Amino acid sequence: GYGRFGIKYDEDASSTDLTTRMRLQIDATAESDAGVVFGARARINADGNGVTNGAGADFNGVRYFARSGGFEVGVGNIFGALESMPGQYPIDLGLTGLGYDYTAFSGADAYTSTGDGAPNGVEVLYSAGDLSVHVSASDMNDRIAGYVAYTWSGWTFAVGGQDSDDATDNDWTATAGGSFGIADVTLAYADNGGTDRVVLAGRFDVGAATDIEVYVADQDGSDTGYGIDFNHDLGGGTSLRGGVAKRFDGNTQADMGVRFNF
Amino acid sequence: GYGRFGIKYDEDASSTDLTTRMRLQIDATAESDAGVVFGARARINADGNGVTNGAGADFNGVRYFARSGGFEVGVGNIFGALESMPGQYPIDLGLTGLGYDYTAFSGADAYTSTGDGAPNGVEVLYSAGDLSVHVSASDMNDRIAGYVAYTWSGWTFAVGGQDSDDATDNDWTATAGGSFGIADVTLAYADNGGTDRVVLAGRFDVGAATDIEVYVADQDGSDTGYGIDFNHDLGGGTSLRGGVAKRFDGNTQADMGVRFNF
Amino acid sequence: GYGRFGIKYDEDASSTDLTTRMRLQIDATAESDAGVVFGARARINADGNGVTNGAGADFNGVRYFARSGGFEVGVGNIFGALESMPGQYPIDLGLTGLGYDYTAFSGADAYTSTGDGAPNGVEVLYSAGDLSVHVSASDMNDRIAGYVAYTWSGWTFAVGGQDSDDATDNDWTATAGGSFGIADVTLAYADNGGTDRVVLAGRFDVGAATDIEVYVADQDGSDTGYGIDFNHDLGGGTSLRGGVAKRFDGNTQADMGVRFNF
Repeated sequence: GYGRFGIKYDEDASSTDLTTRMRLQIDATAESDAGVVFGARARINADGNGVTNGAGADFNGVRYFARSGGFEVGVGNIFGALESMPGQYPIDLGLTGLGYDYTAFSGADAYTSTGDGAPNGVEVLYSAGDLSVHVSASDMNDRIAGYVAYTWSGWTFAVGGQDSDDATDNDWTATAGGSFGIADVTLAYADNGGTDRVVLAGRFDVGAATDIEVYVADQDGSDTGYGIDFNHDLGGGTSLRGGVAKRFDGNTQADMGVRFNF
Repeated sequence: GYGRFGIKYDEDASSTDLTTRMRLQIDATAESDAGVVFGARARINADGNGVTNGAGADFNGVRYFARSGGFEVGVGNIFGALESMPGQYPIDLGLTGLGYDYTAFSGADAYTSTGDGAPNGVEVLYSAGDLSVHVSASDMNDRIAGYVAYTWSGWTFAVGGQDSDDATDNDWTATAGGSFGIADVTLAYADNGGTDRVVLAGRFDVGAATDIEVYVADQDGSDTGYGIDFNHDLGGGTSLRGGVAKRFDGNTQADMGVRFNF
Repeated sequence: GYGRFGIKYDEDASSTDLTTRMRLQIDATAESDAGVVFGARARINADGNGVTNGAGADFNGVRYFARSGGFEVGVGNIFGALESMPGQYPIDLGLTGLGYDYTAFSGADAYTSTGDGAPNGVEVLYSAGDLSVHVSASDMNDRIAGYVAYTWSGWTFAVGGQDSDDATDNDWTATAGGSFGIADVTLAYADNGGTDRVVLAGRFDVGAATDIEVYVADQDGSDTGYGIDFNHDLGGGTSLRGGVAKRFDGNTQADMGVRFNF
């Protein structure tokens, strides 16, 4: 798991407040003689905000799975196909993510650290060499979603789609990501219920222990969003992080603090 | 602890749904120089049903105890004498227990994984060689219950009784269980507030890694209940399990899935 | 963590009931290459009373901190300066504390095992050799509090003060404590919103594994309070403890039981 704490600025709320998180992950597994791994994953998560920075922790929903070779079946608080698709989280902006406007898709099932997850979630994952496939479904809006990703000469291309009862859910999305040597770059597109979003994001190493991440995102009917952050490795699983983002709604948010893995 | 997931069929509800569980046990103990072990047991338990399969976990009530040699005192979320009596859980049907109609007694204090347990529960356990005695009491219906069990030539005989303010609580119960070589067999009787229940249950090994469990149960004013299951050891603490039971109320339930210990 | 269970008598309630506690502490830390330790502390706490002795556990609020050498910054569920001040908890009476009338201050921020702690709590701790300083602040009554403590020839002197919006909160407090050879003695004074409290407390070793603690406390407008206890080490982190106290309100409380560390 990890912990983090720092400060977060929000322009619209005219506030600069503490932000904190503690997250412990429980991965309980057993392996059959034939090599099938059965397991359960749950988290103990505490998120502090500007008022109750020491907010107490709670258990989230459990994901159960069986895995053998490149094949995995999951039920419960599933990962979700679109959430797991390469290129949807090309960077990890600042200390807190700062709104995640750089994630192209919206409206799909996803593993949650603070709730039970989608009702009746089930998913199948398959990977073989450079190919990976993920299909997930739940009773939330009768969603069924999937992606196919292929890595070729260091570049990963992924296409995903979803059928849902909710018109605002994601319909389809595509990403391409790879390295130019000095930078890792990802281009992503999503049709979220008729609203297009395009994201260009990159990570640059600047020095041995520091990188900088940037993104520009465009969405139908919204301001162009953009953001930049830095991550400085302090060693021993600790890092100093901070960033600033102009959100789609025009609001500016910024944060800075420390993250420590344990 | 252990985890399990699979599917469960219920005839009356006309449903076939996912069923899941994750259970972690916390046993925290310390031993004095004189050899007395003091301890606390609590569980982190998550039970998923047909809708929220990834339901989040909760802590249950804590059982505190002091143990020395064959003598143990417990308080809090107590085990309960009748719940702990040999022969009351002769088999472990299917993946989920399928209603536990094969447990003879009903209406008594028992360790619960999903609540706090009986108010003001206290109990004393004693064992010496082939003899075991267990007395428990609580403010729930002013219950006081106890059993005595003796093992003789591989057969275990137990008799238990209870005094309670609730007319539907168990009054007394007796069990006998042992092995015929090819099968472990248990016969149990209980007078649950004037309603008699008789259970005959057995376990048969069929092959090196598989056993089959069966029961027939009869209760005043109910249909005869019966059930059968299989348990197939997959190694490494994992097993495939499934069963079907005709409940006392005439409902048929069935389940199948995997259980993994960790 | 530790567990404890025993019985507690309360004169006013005319009751003698079970009392239980289980407390697990989670200290998750990481250390940077430069030697700064970042961490989070949370507790899993279950307190049983006279009815539900096996009451289930909960997470408390999280304290986050960064520590380097003798310098530490904490946020969230902070320790609190007055709560941490030497001499405020000169003894640990009986099994349960028996009301803590021997703690001089009242009305200040403190680490809580059963809640989230003060809103927006922040604190700074510094120690160097015989000197220690602690300043804490929160949005609870806009409290800001601090203490300075110095140890000289085996005696520790501490002075603390607080500014608060609540007239009943502590204003200032001072303590002195040290050893007379046969006894550890602490004298403490506090002005709690105009109500003076003076406490004299001591600990005496009686035999290799047993000590006795006593206190006398005087408070404006209240009866004189006093109490006595014993602690007998059973080895292996286990101990037998018991005490009796006459509270400020004239009520008599007593307890006895076992505590075990794990």
